[in-house]
Amino acid sequence: MMNVSLVSFTKDGEKVVAIASKMSRSRKGWKHHEETMTEEEIETWIKDAIIHGYWSPLEHSSYTFSIEGISRVASHQLVRHRIASYTQMSHRFAKPVDEYYQPVIPPSIQKRDKEELEKAYKDAYDSYFKLLEKGIPEEDSRYVLPNGVNTNIVVTMNARELYNFFGLRLCSRAQWEIRAIAWKMLEEVRKVHPHLFKYVGPNCIIHENFIRNEPISLEELSEKSEFISQRCIEGVPRDGIYKCIQNSKSILESIK
Amino acid sequence: MMNVSLVSFTKDGEKVVAIASKMSRSRKGWKHHEETMTEEEIETWIKDAIIHGYWSPLEHSSYTFSIEGISRVASHQLVRHRIASYTQMSHRFAKPVDEYYQPVIPPSIQKRDKEELEKAYKDAYDSYFKLLEKGIPEEDSRYVLPNGVNTNIVVTMNARELYNFFGLRLCSRAQWEIRAIAWKMLEEVRKVHPHLFKYVGPNCIIHENFIRNEPISLEELSEKSEFISQRCIEGVPRDGIYKCIQNSKSILESIK
Amino acid sequence: MMNVSLVSFTKDGEKVVAIASKMSRSRKGWKHHEETMTEEEIETWIKDAIIHGYWSPLEHSSYTFSIEGISRVASHQLVRHRIASYTQMSHRFAKPVDEYYQPVIPPSIQKRDKEELEKAYKDAYDSYFKLLEKGIPEEDSRYVLPNGVNTNIVVTMNARELYNFFGLRLCSRAQWEIRAIAWKMLEEVRKVHPHLFKYVGPNCIIHENFIRNEPISLEELSEKSEFISQRCIEGVPRDGIYKCIQNSKSILESIK
Amino acid sequence: MMNVSLVSFTKDGEKVVAIASKMSRSRKGWKHHEETMTEEEIETWIKDAIIHGYWSPLEHSSYTFSIEGISRVASHQLVRHRIASYTQMSHRFAKPVDEYYQPVIPPSIQKRDKEELEKAYKDAYDSYFKLLEKGIPEEDSRYVLPNGVNTNIVVTMNARELYNFFGLRLCSRAQWEIRAIAWKMLEEVRKVHPHLFKYVGPNCIIHENFIRNEPISLEELSEKSEFISQRCIEGVPRDGIYKCIQNSKSILESIK
Repeated sequence: MMNVSLVSFTKDGEKVVAIASKMSRSRKGWKHHEETMTEEEIETWIKDAIIHGYWSPLEHSSYTFSIEGISRVASHQLVRHRIASYTQMSHRFAKPVDEYYQPVIPPSIQKRDKEELEKAYKDAYDSYFKLLEKGIPEEDSRYVLPNGVNTNIVVTMNARELYNFFGLRLCSRAQWEIRAIAWKMLEEVRKVHPHLFKYVGPNCIIHENFIRNEPISLEELSEKSEFISQRCIEGVPRDGIYKCIQNSKSILESIK
Repeated sequence: MMNVSLVSFTKDGEKVVAIASKMSRSRKGWKHHEETMTEEEIETWIKDAIIHGYWSPLEHSSYTFSIEGISRVASHQLVRHRIASYTQMSHRFAKPVDEYYQPVIPPSIQKRDKEELEKAYKDAYDSYFKLLEKGIPEEDSRYVLPNGVNTNIVVTMNARELYNFFGLRLCSRAQWEIRAIAWKMLEEVRKVHPHLFKYVGPNCIIHENFIRNEPISLEELSEKSEFISQRCIEGVPRDGIYKCIQNSKSILESIK
Repeated sequence: MMNVSLVSFTKDGEKVVAIASKMSRSRKGWKHHEETMTEEEIETWIKDAIIHGYWSPLEHSSYTFSIEGISRVASHQLVRHRIASYTQMSHRFAKPVDEYYQPVIPPSIQKRDKEELEKAYKDAYDSYFKLLEKGIPEEDSRYVLPNGVNTNIVVTMNARELYNFFGLRLCSRAQWEIRAIAWKMLEEVRKVHPHLFKYVGPNCIIHENFIRNEPISLEELSEKSEFISQRCIEGVPRDGIYKCIQNSKSILESIK
Repeated sequence: MMNVSLVSFTKDGEKVVAIASKMSRSRKGWKHHEETMTEEEIETWIKDAIIHGYWSPLEHSSYTFSIEGISRVASHQLVRHRIASYTQMSHRFAKPVDEYYQPVIPPSIQKRDKEELEKAYKDAYDSYFKLLEKGIPEEDSRYVLPNGVNTNIVVTMNARELYNFFGLRLCSRAQWEIRAIAWKMLEEVRKVHPHLFKYVGPNCIIHENFIRNEPISLEELSEKSEFISQRCIEGVPRDGIYKCIQNSKSILESIK
């Protein structure tokens, strides 16, 4: 069962981002700003940085997630994000045997044809075990394990990279599993740093915010919100964007 | 069947690296150096850069490989190298069906137990096909495909990153498939840029060259070559290093 | 005098990008695509990648520039682009003396107050030389050299990073010198790879192309071109964007 | 006056690194390891990661420094480290006027010839001010400011990148100012994470630790410590390395 936890992060990340932003415009040092900056100023500096695409200060706030019980289909996609840090459970050393063998079941199959999938998963496991027993090393026997086999991975990204990651992976075109991971990561970071992640969303939102006077946020979004974009970068026309985002987010319901 | 081809690279890469190196020490411009630099000077500037760990000029020479017929076990490891560019065949869009379904057979299994493996591969394929027929989308059906399923990937790395990649992946501790890929990539780049890749090897060689007066190369290496290192970074003691490298390279024979 | 030359690049870069794009959707290998791909297909695959923000294939085409006679003000900004490779003339080793001391003159000063600037540059040089004569090492004497002192730098970026670089540095808000460098780099890459760089421009253009049905290009842009964006990311309102781009580009005239 | 402060960092960084390391070998999740890992285990996992060059877990611990009162000579070198995040005081917007104009004085000049330097710095400032008064914008007037002009910069690096940074910049061949910054950064991180930075040092130490059975640390180093390396990567022979490190570190005394 997929589990996404925020296990470590820059506690004072919002303040760190705001001070760094301000220092680029000021002659004064960190200490001065740390002592004098108000909550209100923090919000203002963060909003200003995001609205004008002044991303570099956002890199000073980091987030470490433990992402457990995902498939190697998803982990393979995840590690394609190169501006991030990963430590992954190795199937060369940590065998996914017994209760640890819990391959991922896609929601499209959960509802029907689950038996076919489970049979396939069981057969693969049996073959894996037979090969191990015959003395084939773990690292080779695992070639028969299914792509859906479960793994754990520790991931660290900074707030800027998270904007990039969310832009791509909250999108309904993203594969369902990495999409579910992204929506869960969003929930986690919103809890701790609501200002930093206020205007984040799939690329339709992020690109819209590049070009409109008042930024829109996922929370405030409603059917009546008018997009200026003619289309999102994936090709969804203006009128379809709202519904597309709802579809994307509904993955959280499907995997419950 | 694994196929590694160098499909594009910086044709004048050795000269480019040498001129860039020289320009860091000279007040003169590119044109002057391009017109006056001799073959001998190219060799000298390259050797000097490598011996003193002056790596930045090596980044100006790039290499694009098409790596075909490898497993997703190997591609997952490959893309962990973040200072590189990748375009991978998507199993969401390009189904590995019919003659394109050729999962990789590890050499340890090739010799024995091949039937068990082939049966497992065939069963997985049958399940995949059944799920497709029942209307499950490709991107979900593929969860039952084996980790050994074949894929193609286009990879670009510069010469500096290749030193890092070779250091890790030519090592006998690297998993056999990515190790085979690395040895084949080495053959390819050596053919076109012998000076740039003269002193490359697994980390035992690379680290040895950081600390010894005269660098050693894989080609000149013999049983009598004396290592100064007490151990390689993986823990192989001085006396075992030569044999360990031979073992590592023997993967090229095993997969023929 | 600033000089920007494209000294090396991926000759078949447009084809490489197109084949890599196609391979992500196809089960066939590089050789097949290389032999069968037409000029028309190359254009189509490139346009499609750009319109849908499918950037990864663009990384397989690289460009090396020798940028000479720029100030350290500009080089300091340039090297902030981290997804690129640099080799810079060192003022620790290559003294900018005699005819090689040619600090940069900003166009705003070129027309008036040039004497004040030249006097300041000469005084700084005299102090530099006096310190050298007194035995102060080059690396310390240079602390008195002006920020405008000239340097040379070799830069390699791939096509994807160039889109990012152009987005930021072709913008009229960019400092004039790095802006001039960017416009010159654009001229160079357009000559060799017109398809790859057809839809590039400052961020107002790039972001506009993320959200409109038919992309616009700098070349076709006219006063009548209607922007959909309400504002550019820097805050210039819709109606001011066209003129703002002309202003930005006019730097090429000013430095002639 | 140079001031280097560690203003934010991953408080539980050593534990995070150790858990991530362990998770790559274990089937269990974060929570289990967080609850059960002892202090002793933390030390062991960290030491093991460093000795075997298993660097990826070290990326999960980040460090943000405010580096104030350094020259643009030093900041230009600093930002060449690309696997890091920077926010720098802009001389386009934050004028270094009045009490904020405090260009850096190299120690080699501090003792003698200080007058020549101060005269040059004062002349440059006068010219800068005259240009400003004549209506030349800040961003162009600053071309006459000296390379030694002071700036502030916020820098974030993770522990792995710090190993790389220290390897290069604690070395006696590094320019004195960035070397002083590096030694001060080392002091800061050692205070908070002594285990993580126990075996760090200039590249002579780091490379030595790649190849010897028992790692050596800067603290335990004495004249009698025997190096196995024939030379450091910069070319200093075995017998000269100890003294070379003392020389390098003595910069901290010179700038007091």
